[in-house]
Amino acid sequence: MNTCSSIGIGLAGFGTVGSGVWNTLERTGDLITERTGGAVALHIAKILVRDVAKVRASTSAVDPALLTTDWRQLIEDPAVDIVVELIGGTTDAFEIVAAALKAKKPVVTGNKALLAERGVELFALSREMETPIHFEAAVAGGIPIIRTVQDSFIGNQIQSFSGIINGTSNYILGRMTDAGLTFDVALAEAQALGYAEADPTLDVNGWDAAHKALLLSTLAYGFSIDPAEIHVSGIEQVRPADIHFAKSLGYVVKLLAVIRQKADGAVELRVQPSFIAQTHILASVHGVFNAVAVHGDAAGESLFYGRGAGQDPTASSVVADLVEAARGLRQASGHRGFLPYRESGRILPVEETATAYYVRFDVTDRPGVVAEIARVLADHRIGISGTHSPVNPSNPDAEFVDMVFLLHTCPFGKLQTALSEIAALDCINSAPVVFRIENLG
Amino acid sequence: MNTCSSIGIGLAGFGTVGSGVWNTLERTGDLITERTGGAVALHIAKILVRDVAKVRASTSAVDPALLTTDWRQLIEDPAVDIVVELIGGTTDAFEIVAAALKAKKPVVTGNKALLAERGVELFALSREMETPIHFEAAVAGGIPIIRTVQDSFIGNQIQSFSGIINGTSNYILGRMTDAGLTFDVALAEAQALGYAEADPTLDVNGWDAAHKALLLSTLAYGFSIDPAEIHVSGIEQVRPADIHFAKSLGYVVKLLAVIRQKADGAVELRVQPSFIAQTHILASVHGVFNAVAVHGDAAGESLFYGRGAGQDPTASSVVADLVEAARGLRQASGHRGFLPYRESGRILPVEETATAYYVRFDVTDRPGVVAEIARVLADHRIGISGTHSPVNPSNPDAEFVDMVFLLHTCPFGKLQTALSEIAALDCINSAPVVFRIENLG
Repeated sequence: MNTCSSIGIGLAGFGTVGSGVWNTLERTGDLITERTGGAVALHIAKILVRDVAKVRASTSAVDPALLTTDWRQLIEDPAVDIVVELIGGTTDAFEIVAAALKAKKPVVTGNKALLAERGVELFALSREMETPIHFEAAVAGGIPIIRTVQDSFIGNQIQSFSGIINGTSNYILGRMTDAGLTFDVALAEAQALGYAEADPTLDVNGWDAAHKALLLSTLAYGFSIDPAEIHVSGIEQVRPADIHFAKSLGYVVKLLAVIRQKADGAVELRVQPSFIAQTHILASVHGVFNAVAVHGDAAGESLFYGRGAGQDPTASSVVADLVEAARGLRQASGHRGFLPYRESGRILPVEETATAYYVRFDVTDRPGVVAEIARVLADHRIGISGTHSPVNPSNPDAEFVDMVFLLHTCPFGKLQTALSEIAALDCINSAPVVFRIENLG
Repeated sequence: MNTCSSIGIGLAGFGTVGSGVWNTLERTGDLITERTGGAVALHIAKILVRDVAKVRASTSAVDPALLTTDWRQLIEDPAVDIVVELIGGTTDAFEIVAAALKAKKPVVTGNKALLAERGVELFALSREMETPIHFEAAVAGGIPIIRTVQDSFIGNQIQSFSGIINGTSNYILGRMTDAGLTFDVALAEAQALGYAEADPTLDVNGWDAAHKALLLSTLAYGFSIDPAEIHVSGIEQVRPADIHFAKSLGYVVKLLAVIRQKADGAVELRVQPSFIAQTHILASVHGVFNAVAVHGDAAGESLFYGRGAGQDPTASSVVADLVEAARGLRQASGHRGFLPYRESGRILPVEETATAYYVRFDVTDRPGVVAEIARVLADHRIGISGTHSPVNPSNPDAEFVDMVFLLHTCPFGKLQTALSEIAALDCINSAPVVFRIENLG
């Protein structure tokens, strides 16, 4: 519906999500106009691509006149009212977003790394130019968690988030749990199915989830956090034995992002593989799905579940943001996008964060090993709730074995000190592996 | 923060939710102003109560000058910019909402019965007066499902909703499942705990859920539905034996609201006790919690879970709507509230809705009973996937027993015809009880 009053979109990036946005607008553009009582009509006015010939070869739906390889054209074209950044990365994407804001063109982006790493500069520019950045697509694909926190929970102090916000990791852990696969085999399967990138580093090392958690925290508490200040660990160290052990205790292993505000206002933010109770609703989040549990002081416990990635779900969020941005263009002044409202805040050092733990040691099995480890833990006044060494029936007297300890809640710093002492014992063969046992209430 | 530019709220009703709104604004009013970059400050300017003396006796927090027993004062007071209707019912509440709209004062309401029954008139008035009605609190208390459907999923054709949207019923069914209670005992317990009203009729007969389902359908498909056109049944007929039987087959019994758009555009909308797979995420919705699963063509499968009622969760939704309404007051023209965008649409007659079924017959047990029932079903070409009569070990030859049939998917109309024939058999002692077996995909 390219009427005179239709809003022109400049699409930077025409890959999976970009073409999903195109398709979604083709399919539902008229419905959007109908649903907004005629207030919003959208059309794509310009598309930034890397290779015009390639796009022309792959689709006949797109008018070649819309294509450009020069991002400045996207910004400068008077037909472009809103800029959608979907090229990824933090360098060119930064240039494009900054230039769009300077030209007072609202930005819609799904780039979590960009906002987590350079959000301070970009939100400052957003404020200065009175031009919003919308980023629903940056966290949990098709789940409208950004708008929920920003608008629906505006009257809540957000006490905590617990999220499964990396679909790739969740898929891999699920296959390790259900089919007994090793990490490597499950990862290869995820890659074959298109659930993991050729380079899966940011998915499996926890940083993709961490970028999303940083954004959720900024939304809830109003200030940006330096990624260097938070504790992130991924799922590379999870073994089938850990999953088996978790199951036997009534837990499942999930890569969990935890954000909590403490009584003194400090924010606890960490991402790591965690044991969570099988009965908790987050344990029912399977495959590539994402879910975020939110606890607000008024709303109480809530959970938002859906597809965390993929062409259409992410396009759904981009399109919702486009409608929001289009409505904002009709406003006289100010903007309704998010702005950090606090200069800074305190991050709880990871050493002060406290949970129960599961620790796996690779030990040389000889009499006295348990006593030696237990002695060090006792010296640090860390309680043991259980210890276990799975016997290999085909080799019950194996020399090298896994020895597992379940520990009572204590500060992580205290645990680290104890573990470094234990690692120095000559019966210990490699660095201990630690998972949190998360009490989600 | 009662600054000059602060928005004045007229609160109609100061019961549970009304005082929750007061408390929430006391607690987070400054935070709201901070989070909106100073754009929104709210204060309560007038409160409609039934008995001024009673309020004065129960709280010293409220300035008596704010109280009135005349709703016209609430509308006419120039200090009132937005009217919040929380008195319930469909008569006085209608007068107040209509008068507020006529005075061009945006309305926030949590009154699902009012909007389900008189929404056509009120939304027409809303359009005419260019003044929005916000109703997040009307469906599923603290879960922001209204805004999600309206804004976040605006680029989606909504294919279906499946919802557990009556906490009282869910609590009762849960206690029947977990503790083997009868319906009457579980209901009495729910009343004792304050989870059910003294008059629980609308909760247990399905109509509270149906009112919410009507609103969700109107949001998704743009037209209002006459409550007389939909099929609603409640949980009064559920017995422990049904729950036990469901469990043994891998199901749980839930009061489910199902809304679906068929390929020809017709809307299927029904509320009834249903068997759903224990592995489906909706099966994990326990106690008084609510959840709505939404399937959009772009977003895919999503689920929104949280508290469906209660003082603070409902107040959280009212306050979010107040902020939205306050922002709207600053707009030059038009409104961002919901307006039905279609005159009418087709409702799929319940006779044409098709699922699998669980049917319980109260029979006189004599040879030939199963054959007689099976004969009638066969005549109507309704397939049987199983039949079962629980033997009472202490009285294996009991004369009157429950006989359960599991039936393959067929149109409900066909089932009804067959069941009326079966009911006429002389071995059948009372009307058969039917639950849907819902395939939630």
